[in-house]
Amino acid sequence: MVALGGGHGLQATLSALRRVTDDVTAVVTVADDGGSSGRLRRELGMLPPGDLRKALAALAGADDDGRMWAELVEHRFGGAGALAGHAVGNLLLAGLLDVLGDPVAVLDRVSALMGVRGRVLPMCTEPLDMEAEVVGIDRDPDARSTIRGQVAIASTPGRVKRIHLYATNGERKKPTACPEAVRAVHEADAVVLGPGSWFTSVLPHVLVPELHDALLATGARRVVVLNLVPQPGETAGFSPEQHLDVLSQHAPGLRVESVLADTDSVPTPDRLHAAAEEMGARALLDRIALHEQPGRHDPAALAASLMAACERRTDRWR
Amino acid sequence: MVALGGGHGLQATLSALRRVTDDVTAVVTVADDGGSSGRLRRELGMLPPGDLRKALAALAGADDDGRMWAELVEHRFGGAGALAGHAVGNLLLAGLLDVLGDPVAVLDRVSALMGVRGRVLPMCTEPLDMEAEVVGIDRDPDARSTIRGQVAIASTPGRVKRIHLYATNGERKKPTACPEAVRAVHEADAVVLGPGSWFTSVLPHVLVPELHDALLATGARRVVVLNLVPQPGETAGFSPEQHLDVLSQHAPGLRVESVLADTDSVPTPDRLHAAAEEMGARALLDRIALHEQPGRHDPAALAASLMAACERRTDRWR
Repeated sequence: MVALGGGHGLQATLSALRRVTDDVTAVVTVADDGGSSGRLRRELGMLPPGDLRKALAALAGADDDGRMWAELVEHRFGGAGALAGHAVGNLLLAGLLDVLGDPVAVLDRVSALMGVRGRVLPMCTEPLDMEAEVVGIDRDPDARSTIRGQVAIASTPGRVKRIHLYATNGERKKPTACPEAVRAVHEADAVVLGPGSWFTSVLPHVLVPELHDALLATGARRVVVLNLVPQPGETAGFSPEQHLDVLSQHAPGLRVESVLADTDSVPTPDRLHAAAEEMGARALLDRIALHEQPGRHDPAALAASLMAACERRTDRWR
Repeated sequence: MVALGGGHGLQATLSALRRVTDDVTAVVTVADDGGSSGRLRRELGMLPPGDLRKALAALAGADDDGRMWAELVEHRFGGAGALAGHAVGNLLLAGLLDVLGDPVAVLDRVSALMGVRGRVLPMCTEPLDMEAEVVGIDRDPDARSTIRGQVAIASTPGRVKRIHLYATNGERKKPTACPEAVRAVHEADAVVLGPGSWFTSVLPHVLVPELHDALLATGARRVVVLNLVPQPGETAGFSPEQHLDVLSQHAPGLRVESVLADTDSVPTPDRLHAAAEEMGARALLDRIALHEQPGRHDPAALAASLMAACERRTDRWR
C-alpha cells in the first residue's frame, strides 16, 4: 500500500491504513514553506520536515515507546523565544539531516526508533518550490496572477487554476523523484492519493515527472480519497467533481480505479459519478467522517471504505 | 564508580572510566548559564542540558549506532539563524523534559537510546544559580565583589575566593540533591571529583548539602583529579595545591584517599604532597596528559592512573 499526500490529510489515510496492514509506504510532499518547517527550510536550506514528521507520528508503534515518540516528535516548544512553535521532531530530523545527509537514511533510522510500521519517504530528496496561476485577485477577473509558495497558495483569496513545481535551485528545473518512492508506487498493490490540501499536498505528487509516470504505469489499484470539506483558500467553493477535474488537468492520462467520498460531502452524486467515470473510476460514497468532528475522517470507517475500494483483492490486508 | 563534575573535565574522566568498567554513574552539575544551554534555560526555564549531553556522549555505546548518536547529540546547527549554535542533543533533551517532566526518566531514556554504559544523573533536578566572591576587580584590592552566573565567574579577571549555589527560585534557597545521585555516591566503590573548571564544574557538587554529606559518609574511595593547566579566568595562576585548599574550604571535613595529577603540571611536588596529606590523601603523580595536546587528558593513561589510585580493590574493574 502506498499513500501519497501531506499534512493532516495524509495522517488520516495513514491512521486508517495502519489498522488493516503493516505494509504502508507514505510518500510525502516536500514543498511546505510555512511554520516550523518553513523556518527550518529557510534557516538551514533543508527538506521541510513537518509533513514527514506527521507521517512518522501517524505510523509510530502502538506500544508505550511508540506512543511516547509520537508525542515527543509532535511536541512544540512554548514560550516566545527562538524555539517557540518548533516541533521537536522537526529539530530531530534537521539534526539527523545535517549529520547523515541522506533523507531516506534519516527517515529509515527515525522510523526504526519510533517503531514505525511501514516506511516514510519524501517524494523528492530536495526541497521544492511551488507556484500557482490564480484568477480573481487582479482587477481583470479573467487575468491570471502568479502566486509563489505553499503558504501563499493555500491561503489565496483567488481561485487556483494550475500549480507548478520546481526544484529549489533558481533554475526552475523539474523536480527529480526519490527513487525509493517511485519503486514503491511501481510495486504497490494499491496507491491512495488524497485526502488533503488539494493543490499544495495532493497535486504536487503528479507534478514530479517520475512519480507521474509511475502512477500511470503501476499495476496497483489507484484510489483517490476526496476531502470532507473544501479548504478555505485554495479550494474554497470547489465541488467534489471539481477536485477530480483539477487532478485530471494536472495529471494527463491518469486513470483511477476508485474514488472515495463521504456521503454527506457530496451534494450532487450524479455529477461525481460522471466525473469519476471519466477517469475510469467507480465512485464509492460512504459515511467516513467522524460523527463528532465532521471535518475529520473516521480512521476505522476510512479503513473499511479503502478495503472495499480495493475489493480486498490484496493479500496484504490483515 | 561515580564521577562528579561537568563539561570537558567530566568528559575526560568518563572517557577514561568507560575503558575499565561498565559501572559508571556521572553526576553532572546543572548551574551552567552559557551558550546553547543558557539560551534553553532562559527561554524554557529548564535544566541546562549541555553538561548532561556531554556526559551522555562520552558514555555512548561503542557500536555504529552509539557513535552515530554521540555525533548527533554533539552536532551543532550552523548558519546565523535562531538555531545557530544549538546542539541537537540539547534540543532533544529539552523536548523530552517538556514531554516527560522528570529529568532522571529523560536521561535514562536517552541513555537507553544511545547505548550508554552506566548512568548519567543531574546533581540536582532543578537549574541552579551560582554566585562568587571575587577580589581584585574593585579599586580596593582586598574588597570582595559579588559575581553572578557561571559564565561570568568562569571568565572573571578577579580572583575567586568562594562560590555559593542557590536553587533558582529567587529565594536563595539551598539546592536539593537528586536522590539517585546521593544514593550512587553512598553505594560507590570509588568517587572521582574533577578534573574540570574548578569553581564552576567541580566545587558545585560539594555545595549541595546532601551530596556533601554523602561524600563525607560514603565508604567509597575518594579520588580527586587535578587539572592539567589552570583555567584562564576562574583559576588563573592557581597552583595544584591551591586547588586542594579551595576544595577543603568549600567542603569542610572532606577526607580524600587519592589525589591524581600530571607530573608536568606540578611545579612543586612537595607542596602538593603536603596539601594532599592535609586532606588525608596520597598524591599520585603520573604522565596523564595527551602528548600531542598537553591540555587534555589521555584517556588510557588517566584510566590506568585511576585504577592505581583505587588500588584495584574493587571487583567492578574489568
